[in-house]
Amino acid sequence: MTRPPAEIGMPLEAVDTPSLLLDLDLFERNLQRLAAAVAGRGVRLRPHSKSHKCPVIALRQIALGAVGVCCQKVGEAEAMVYGGVPNVLVTNEIVGKSKIARLAALAKERAWIGVCADHPDNVRDLNEAALAYGVRLPVLVEVNVGADRCGVEPGEPAVALARQIAASPGLRFAGLQAYHGAAQHVREYAKRQDATESAVAKTRLTVELLGRQGLTCELVTGAGTGSYAFEAASRVFNELQAGSYIFMDADYAKNLGPTGAPATEFGHSLYIYATVMSRPTAERAVVDAGHKALSVDSGLPVVADMPDVEYVRAADEHGKLTLHDPNRRLDLGTKLRLIPGHCDPTVNLYDWYVGYRGNRVEALWPITARGAVL
Amino acid sequence: MTRPPAEIGMPLEAVDTPSLLLDLDLFERNLQRLAAAVAGRGVRLRPHSKSHKCPVIALRQIALGAVGVCCQKVGEAEAMVYGGVPNVLVTNEIVGKSKIARLAALAKERAWIGVCADHPDNVRDLNEAALAYGVRLPVLVEVNVGADRCGVEPGEPAVALARQIAASPGLRFAGLQAYHGAAQHVREYAKRQDATESAVAKTRLTVELLGRQGLTCELVTGAGTGSYAFEAASRVFNELQAGSYIFMDADYAKNLGPTGAPATEFGHSLYIYATVMSRPTAERAVVDAGHKALSVDSGLPVVADMPDVEYVRAADEHGKLTLHDPNRRLDLGTKLRLIPGHCDPTVNLYDWYVGYRGNRVEALWPITARGAVL
Repeated sequence: MTRPPAEIGMPLEAVDTPSLLLDLDLFERNLQRLAAAVAGRGVRLRPHSKSHKCPVIALRQIALGAVGVCCQKVGEAEAMVYGGVPNVLVTNEIVGKSKIARLAALAKERAWIGVCADHPDNVRDLNEAALAYGVRLPVLVEVNVGADRCGVEPGEPAVALARQIAASPGLRFAGLQAYHGAAQHVREYAKRQDATESAVAKTRLTVELLGRQGLTCELVTGAGTGSYAFEAASRVFNELQAGSYIFMDADYAKNLGPTGAPATEFGHSLYIYATVMSRPTAERAVVDAGHKALSVDSGLPVVADMPDVEYVRAADEHGKLTLHDPNRRLDLGTKLRLIPGHCDPTVNLYDWYVGYRGNRVEALWPITARGAVL
Repeated sequence: MTRPPAEIGMPLEAVDTPSLLLDLDLFERNLQRLAAAVAGRGVRLRPHSKSHKCPVIALRQIALGAVGVCCQKVGEAEAMVYGGVPNVLVTNEIVGKSKIARLAALAKERAWIGVCADHPDNVRDLNEAALAYGVRLPVLVEVNVGADRCGVEPGEPAVALARQIAASPGLRFAGLQAYHGAAQHVREYAKRQDATESAVAKTRLTVELLGRQGLTCELVTGAGTGSYAFEAASRVFNELQAGSYIFMDADYAKNLGPTGAPATEFGHSLYIYATVMSRPTAERAVVDAGHKALSVDSGLPVVADMPDVEYVRAADEHGKLTLHDPNRRLDLGTKLRLIPGHCDPTVNLYDWYVGYRGNRVEALWPITARGAVL
């Protein structure tokens, strides 16, 4: 774990760079907005902790009504459980003996631990480990509802795998994982709704088919920040996995709302704090945040508060800025905030959130699942 | 620091995934090849540790004749010095009081610590810190030789800054940093040579101009894995900074040699080890290595040993593979090696190198400068 870039009580300008800033007011507003949007709609919220990798944040989500969190990796689940989170669904297939053993052992730690499967061999391995560790693991069938990544096909293939799970003495059939990742970033509202409704229809069909076989879905889980309102209204899904809503990255902010204007339900609360480390020409500045400080897989970061300054190119340790306004001052040593193109892999580069309110550092939260890829 | 994904003595297939594999035979051959290519040519080798972030590797480079290493960040320099590396050049501008103080303090640790500058205010700050800590810091002027990133322009602007450094009692003018990053990945050999020769000419001009003012360049440093042979032959550069040669990523492997065929001087020694975690269709497999296991900024990874299997899409924790050969078997749980598109930011995601020889794990080296962005 690297040194923290700040101390509690510091003014924001004293925070070292590059570092991960969290605007606590906006962050808390985002937390409350989703909790309020979901309340009373008959669906539970189980936010994805792959976005934040931090039990402190998970516990705040739970304090506002979330039933637990989702994880993608056993290492993330360990970080959550050891950080005090009692209810974790691994929304992913866990393959490999050592990982499955860790998962089964974790289920003995006074925590509810669920996992997904999409292959009979994996179900067999999960069952063996559960029996070896004396636990009964809840297992969801992952269904391919449009992302064409993992998952069995909806309908009969899902039912067949659910039957195998239900017949495994170490396992319990717990429902369906039906996440349509590709739908989350469809820009147009109506098209995003169409993509999600298609996923909902496949999920509904499968739930009904399972029901006719006496296989009840305790959890029907999916949805992300881009689509959650559709799944929430579906009367099929009973859990939502949205994760990015707490931070909002530059890419998600390009999604449009029902009026065609950018959706502004959630605000940007997460920033990369960076320092101007070179001012070679009037039009060019270089900041100390490049590929090792932010992920560019979903586009370059956006400079906050300075629409006339553009982040035009990332190198490993440098970010090149173009100043479009000749009157813009940006002296050597100036610190500025960048909105990451994609929050999740950006967070994974850091060991600390620097939470601030107004101009004062108020929190230093360790990102304990940073790098937990195993 | 995360758990190691392996134990010494394990067979390769038992290593957990995703993890960073280092083929020790190929790695050592790469180390020796560059050392041999440079020996007797009147230039020193100072490999860039931003690629490996590991003092164990730095000390191996030094054992083969390197004079020390380069770093980009103070945190990297600290990791190197505390890891036993006695000679570190920070090939970058260090801006901000706390970082400059750490740099000056580090220079008291029985290590030679050099740094670059491209701005009078930064030279002033470096001088103040050096005087406060009672050290004399060697400072190089960074010259823009074509990358249009940091650096003052060649010729008179460089001389003016060198004069300021030489006149600062806490500093010593130590030479020029002239790295042409943009030239490294020019595919065609002749064009890469042209780009580098243009950088060499600007550097030569500046060295001569400085010499006429009595300002001697103890170090004239630059070059990368793509261009080092040109700088080595220039009789202007006396240090080479190549870093990627030890690993070779998929992007660097696209560079062409003088005959027009891909340059094969250095081999791929670094891999992401990944597990097939889903086999939904005959043509599709999913591995457990996505954005949090490899950096896609310079393109997607390439599947080693299986030219008929293509890594077509990365998500945060998933990599989607397309199987182009219907006879290819790739069972659930199969482990395979991926050649990263870009090694440097990929290494920065991990805490451990798993070194192997043949089929046996032989080394677990901690990546102590992982995440050292400050």
